[in-house]
Amino acid sequence: MEVKTGTLLSTINYPEDLKKYSEEELEQICQELRQYIIDVVSVNGGHFGASLGVVELTVALHYALNTPYDKLIWDVGHQAYGHKILTGRKDQFHTNRIINGISGFPKISESEYDTFGVGHSSTSISAALGMAVASHYKGEKDRQHVAVIGDGAMTAGLAFEGLNHAGIEKSNVLVILNDNCMSIDPNVGALKEYLTSITTSKSYNRFRDDVFNVLTKLSELGPNAQKYVKKIQKSIKGTLLKQSNLFEALNFRYFGPVDGHDVKRLAAIIKDLSAIPGPKLLHCVTVKGKGFALAEKDQTKWHAPGLFDKITGEIKKPVIDKPQPPKYQDVFGHTMVELAEANSKIVGITPAMPSGCSLNIMMKAMPERAFDVGIAEQHAVTFSAGLATQGLVPFCNIYSSFMQRAYDQVIHDVAIQNLNVVFCLDRAGLAGADGATHHGAYDLAFMRCIPNMTVASPMNEEELRNMMYTAQLENKGPFTIRYPRGNGMLPDWKRPLNEIQVGKGRKVCDGEDVAILTIGHVGNFAVEACKELNSDGINPAHYDLRFVKPLDEELLHDVFTRFKNIITVEDGCLQGGMGSAVLEFMADNGYKCNVTRLGIPDEIVEHGEQPELWALCGYDTAAIIQAAKKIAVSRTTKIMAS
Amino acid sequence: MEVKTGTLLSTINYPEDLKKYSEEELEQICQELRQYIIDVVSVNGGHFGASLGVVELTVALHYALNTPYDKLIWDVGHQAYGHKILTGRKDQFHTNRIINGISGFPKISESEYDTFGVGHSSTSISAALGMAVASHYKGEKDRQHVAVIGDGAMTAGLAFEGLNHAGIEKSNVLVILNDNCMSIDPNVGALKEYLTSITTSKSYNRFRDDVFNVLTKLSELGPNAQKYVKKIQKSIKGTLLKQSNLFEALNFRYFGPVDGHDVKRLAAIIKDLSAIPGPKLLHCVTVKGKGFALAEKDQTKWHAPGLFDKITGEIKKPVIDKPQPPKYQDVFGHTMVELAEANSKIVGITPAMPSGCSLNIMMKAMPERAFDVGIAEQHAVTFSAGLATQGLVPFCNIYSSFMQRAYDQVIHDVAIQNLNVVFCLDRAGLAGADGATHHGAYDLAFMRCIPNMTVASPMNEEELRNMMYTAQLENKGPFTIRYPRGNGMLPDWKRPLNEIQVGKGRKVCDGEDVAILTIGHVGNFAVEACKELNSDGINPAHYDLRFVKPLDEELLHDVFTRFKNIITVEDGCLQGGMGSAVLEFMADNGYKCNVTRLGIPDEIVEHGEQPELWALCGYDTAAIIQAAKKIAVSRTTKIMAS
Repeated sequence: MEVKTGTLLSTINYPEDLKKYSEEELEQICQELRQYIIDVVSVNGGHFGASLGVVELTVALHYALNTPYDKLIWDVGHQAYGHKILTGRKDQFHTNRIINGISGFPKISESEYDTFGVGHSSTSISAALGMAVASHYKGEKDRQHVAVIGDGAMTAGLAFEGLNHAGIEKSNVLVILNDNCMSIDPNVGALKEYLTSITTSKSYNRFRDDVFNVLTKLSELGPNAQKYVKKIQKSIKGTLLKQSNLFEALNFRYFGPVDGHDVKRLAAIIKDLSAIPGPKLLHCVTVKGKGFALAEKDQTKWHAPGLFDKITGEIKKPVIDKPQPPKYQDVFGHTMVELAEANSKIVGITPAMPSGCSLNIMMKAMPERAFDVGIAEQHAVTFSAGLATQGLVPFCNIYSSFMQRAYDQVIHDVAIQNLNVVFCLDRAGLAGADGATHHGAYDLAFMRCIPNMTVASPMNEEELRNMMYTAQLENKGPFTIRYPRGNGMLPDWKRPLNEIQVGKGRKVCDGEDVAILTIGHVGNFAVEACKELNSDGINPAHYDLRFVKPLDEELLHDVFTRFKNIITVEDGCLQGGMGSAVLEFMADNGYKCNVTRLGIPDEIVEHGEQPELWALCGYDTAAIIQAAKKIAVSRTTKIMAS
Repeated sequence: MEVKTGTLLSTINYPEDLKKYSEEELEQICQELRQYIIDVVSVNGGHFGASLGVVELTVALHYALNTPYDKLIWDVGHQAYGHKILTGRKDQFHTNRIINGISGFPKISESEYDTFGVGHSSTSISAALGMAVASHYKGEKDRQHVAVIGDGAMTAGLAFEGLNHAGIEKSNVLVILNDNCMSIDPNVGALKEYLTSITTSKSYNRFRDDVFNVLTKLSELGPNAQKYVKKIQKSIKGTLLKQSNLFEALNFRYFGPVDGHDVKRLAAIIKDLSAIPGPKLLHCVTVKGKGFALAEKDQTKWHAPGLFDKITGEIKKPVIDKPQPPKYQDVFGHTMVELAEANSKIVGITPAMPSGCSLNIMMKAMPERAFDVGIAEQHAVTFSAGLATQGLVPFCNIYSSFMQRAYDQVIHDVAIQNLNVVFCLDRAGLAGADGATHHGAYDLAFMRCIPNMTVASPMNEEELRNMMYTAQLENKGPFTIRYPRGNGMLPDWKRPLNEIQVGKGRKVCDGEDVAILTIGHVGNFAVEACKELNSDGINPAHYDLRFVKPLDEELLHDVFTRFKNIITVEDGCLQGGMGSAVLEFMADNGYKCNVTRLGIPDEIVEHGEQPELWALCGYDTAAIIQAAKKIAVSRTTKIMAS
């Protein structure tokens, strides 16, 4: 899709082209840029509301700054579509998030304008400070370092750690707080309330001026009044102003709040702020989804709405001719309510992902028992640990890749104390179009090395429900259930809940030529593979391990006794994952079989549709068939040779 | 060691005993408690300054609160010695940090007064909030939940995340900010400067009162003045006070600063605050090391001074009759300076551990190139990533167990972008007396599953130096070097620097009966074991892998071709660790050997001296000998049977 000829945007490929226009023309450029984003995202999909909200900020930044010499760091990065379009990627923008196309997030390898790869939130201040300190060290004093961070991302501890350090460095860091009161869901927490209070009440700067104006007037009332006024001025200057405003308390010069959709003023302010050395923060108020009425109104829905009609706003759903299986996340959400109704000890926790993990179902049904704690994975886990010490059973739902942000809390606060916290890891395995930062590739490896931890993964929705049911039964200790992004496979998924014995796998089908061991949803690939292999005269057995920890040793003894050739399949990294656990079992028990491990190889996997990536990484149905056939051929060859 | 008879302390075993005394007697109890801590720690060792600093706070808390019904959570917990003594462990206190003795930190399994296990910092607010929300849910409205957290611990993002959530919950949480301006080293960052400013300037509450007093006087000057005063009052009340004070900005009611050594007043304040519902913060100013002059003066040295003469303060050093090998951490520190002198791109980063990791050597030698970023592991890593994008080579030194707190930053900010950040993981492996929370047990497993990451571990000081030298040579990507707590083995450690080929191990000695593969310092156990085995007629080969990733495939092909029996040894967890990596190599290459893996088993290992724990876990010299002999015997048996 091309930008309309005749538009200003059609002449702009890089910031240098943008700079040729006058300040008066910026508004039109913003309109055209906004329209282009709507045009492309409506037919290609992707994140939507965030980029619309920062159109003016994006144009103003590239207009006022000297990018890429000046460093511009987008926090999270799903709002950087306008940035990508203005920095040499206008013509590739339609390949956004498609395999081999451009990434949905800034990425160093993609453009020199992308100064820092993102995807997860709250890294921008630390990264910008690192760049600023490097510039300072290298004597590049004129270089600017600008972090654009949302109020949602600001709630994560990493952002605070960055502020705390930046406040004592003399480096040029400008933090632009993009305050739209939203994460994907509405932002929560005390900081959000604080920002609302300074936005809705008189601005801090205006207040300061007002008070001093009135004091000046008071002092005109005579010498007695002057004496008192001086006292007050001294107090205010010496104590209160130094301490007031949260960001000034952290040594940042605070400016704002300003209208984040006034592009001309923004450009002027950013230019002015560039002249001020040291750490500073510009509080910028924006509307997520700005310029697309429906997106402004229902901001969560339009965070990433899928395909839609850009005129009517109708969201396009695939034509459905039969009952579809549900998303795993919805099975989680509904089952939470079902379990919590029966067990009063159960509570739910999500760090800012109520709609992403479907805990919103429970938040609606029983609001006093479901907690959105903001973008704060570490806190989500330690808070869960605190709840568990008092006998509650917290289900803490965190995307697999985000769980990397709370790893110590899992070890230190939950596992060492053997507390019964249930971790539900959504988006485990390759997550698709969000790409490298969002793949839940490592959880089997990093979770199974933790003592006391149970690690389970369901092959389908029914198993997910049963694992959740099992995890909340009498003090099971730390219990991880990981499941993938997307839909399951059982249209009639809501079956009665049954306990699964912890550490027991199951035989899906028996065979003799080769044993296929799977964990999680890839078991379904194996089922398909077995069918096809059968029709080719190969007779594999298939076992669903269900648990990577503890392993089903009885099952494995049976497998290693009966089979010479074993294939393991997992939607997780090969280093240290399930296959590796099986190898440990084999070595510890003195078995000597051939084990072929299929899973995510030791490399960074980029974005693409999940099936594309499963195939690419070699553990889809076709890959299992191929591996089994290779074994069959080599056996036949050996038999014929002997 | 017993408390002197006749003292008040000798009559106190539990808080109920403490409560029998009058407020007037609390000061004497504090003196006696302080003396008892000095008596015991001077001859037993352990943490020192932190517990002395909170003697009054400890007594006041147990006097004013209804523990253990009320929940008291000590952040980090090395300041909880007084708490342990007052809660049933006076007579075991001399077993502190000794194997099978009491833990140096609070621990749920040890006492009902220990509400939350700690060791790492900044968890207390989140844990207290979890408990408070649970109490609220259970209708226990009178229960208090008190987190005692230092100003150092307050800089970590997790603490901020906890504040941000607590600020919107209606639960009873009292945060006591124990402000002594210290972590182990002096605290750093904007927050610390802020706390100093509100402590040294007039107190916030007093200021507020003062201004309003003056305003009242002003309004007595007539109706004109009254008009203006009303305006100011409205502004101040409506805007400034709501926004002023960092903690009030986060919806906490702020009280203080108060003198943390005035036990009577503290007890009264804590009682008063218990009556106020919702989140509140008491800012308490204390002196680390209070009551022991030398400890007050040199707070870093006296954080954990070892054994000392309690009268003269002379620190007792073991009698040395020959040159001793250095601590690994000092080899790191000195080598940093040496490398940085030759390579201007090198910078050093530590999250609040300058003296613990010896980066203080570089901070002294080249202060502009070494950064203490406060207790902020996440920021330390992402800040390093930012530095690396600009071509610098950051050496980011983080204790192995603390690196768990920055796991996502390693993956998301460094590894995915393939940046040349060097991670030096001190205290890797079993860390000794600090116990379960501080063991660096999992790093080999959680680091080697990350793509692009190099994972190395030196067998001695020379190798550590060479690995550091290698890591900073032309763009090596993410590079982890893990080494243990304590001393090395080379008195003449300062040898010329040499490059090591990445992924190349070395043959330490050749043999034929069994191959011993080691990583890191445990290679020295193997050297000893080989000697002894030789004298018993067994002839093992020994290989030091040096790198867990990439593995030395050439070396391993040689090993697996020549040996039927292999022993792997590591000071790390068996699940997913080095041995597991070797098994993956074996399976991928179709070898069929017997592999015995020695390392940390799949359980929580408690505290004790390192050699005690190595023995307990079965990978010290004796364990290697035993494993090798077992193989030799089984071979002999087989040969004799055949």
